[in-house]
Amino acid sequence: MELFFSRDIDGSICRLDQDESGHCVKVLRHRSGDEISVIDGCGTLYRCRITADSPKGVEAMVLYSEEGWGSHPYRLHLAVCPTKNNDRYEWFAEKACEIGFDELSPVIGEHSERRVLKTARVEKVLISAAKQSLKATVPAVNEPVSVKEFIEAYGDVQDGRLKLIAYCFEDERVPRRSIKEVLDGFDGSEIIVMIGPEGDFSKAEAELALAKGFIPVHLGSSRLRTETAALTAASAAYFRYM
Amino acid sequence: MELFFSRDIDGSICRLDQDESGHCVKVLRHRSGDEISVIDGCGTLYRCRITADSPKGVEAMVLYSEEGWGSHPYRLHLAVCPTKNNDRYEWFAEKACEIGFDELSPVIGEHSERRVLKTARVEKVLISAAKQSLKATVPAVNEPVSVKEFIEAYGDVQDGRLKLIAYCFEDERVPRRSIKEVLDGFDGSEIIVMIGPEGDFSKAEAELALAKGFIPVHLGSSRLRTETAALTAASAAYFRYM
Repeated sequence: MELFFSRDIDGSICRLDQDESGHCVKVLRHRSGDEISVIDGCGTLYRCRITADSPKGVEAMVLYSEEGWGSHPYRLHLAVCPTKNNDRYEWFAEKACEIGFDELSPVIGEHSERRVLKTARVEKVLISAAKQSLKATVPAVNEPVSVKEFIEAYGDVQDGRLKLIAYCFEDERVPRRSIKEVLDGFDGSEIIVMIGPEGDFSKAEAELALAKGFIPVHLGSSRLRTETAALTAASAAYFRYM
Repeated sequence: MELFFSRDIDGSICRLDQDESGHCVKVLRHRSGDEISVIDGCGTLYRCRITADSPKGVEAMVLYSEEGWGSHPYRLHLAVCPTKNNDRYEWFAEKACEIGFDELSPVIGEHSERRVLKTARVEKVLISAAKQSLKATVPAVNEPVSVKEFIEAYGDVQDGRLKLIAYCFEDERVPRRSIKEVLDGFDGSEIIVMIGPEGDFSKAEAELALAKGFIPVHLGSSRLRTETAALTAASAAYFRYM
């Protein structure tokens, strides 16, 4: 099944941007009258009939739509420090999208070597992964903020979300439980998980998170790279609601 | 922690091959008298003192050893069809090793586009991943066989192993259960999971597997690529024994 992505759907008319139009007309050789399937990235699939087949801008008439297409029964927001190697971050984003997540916040930790991340590239990877894995929702990507800013923004708010921080060091005062155990004991469906950089979160970041109501978790006994840890957190949520 | 890998440890003397020796002496500048940690790929970590620091062949004296170092409480054998793109297979191997698995059988399905796989490259990736994730066991890689050969070799044997096949189509006669549900109901710790190619297993392959005692499972509602499916199966085992 071939999916197109469009941010320009007004209910009855859908327009594809130049990239998608070129792919639709030049590569797949679609012409006026053909039916195509388009996702809006926000959860809805549109079945459309092409009315203008220009490779620079396809227009199509919406025949019907389906909300929540390819959705999952939880809402997962991952806050993940950039990896030294960008490919690894994009790889994680692609795989986590296949498995199912909703929002990505790149966060910069005190121990982060890489302190910038181009969100446009990650967004492109996510659009492609959503289309490939037949989901109408493309996870949102936020602009990078520091780990402490993220904690300040999301902690201490009584919003029913389960807020987890996965770090690797032991702190006897606040023993970490496994992410599986904590998820199994959670009744809701909205989850935030913070994953640190190669050098882990700093003690100060972990203490702030705990003070702001985040629950410290571990991801099992294996030593995982940042991108593997982030994907494992996504898998944990996926299995919790399977 | 820096780990070296050696297949040449006789109990009291450990020899590194040329690659590892060069890395040890030229890159990390180790000299005779230094202590190094060496894994044998079979589960044991050796702490050694260097006695000869040639970049072509380091020799070291074993001081002590630790069996089952970095091990996991299950034994997972993954039989995974090659992906069209080799990088994706190597990526899966690396990540599954970080999470924890024991044996890899590349299997060629009737719908496989790629029908060859160079095991030497995958082995290299696995050695590197084991060292990076602090495990003394490097998963074994078998020579490729056909899906049907694999089923014939492993099915129908009463060996206490849980044998699963993950395919995507529905068969009303034999409904698939989720891999999570089947793993949760399993008392043992030895598991085989078969993961098909981009075009899925054929009906004939699935029928043979069922006839030979494999249990059909699904990996949840998401449509996963081959490499993501294989990694998700590894995560399922990891969480089952967490």
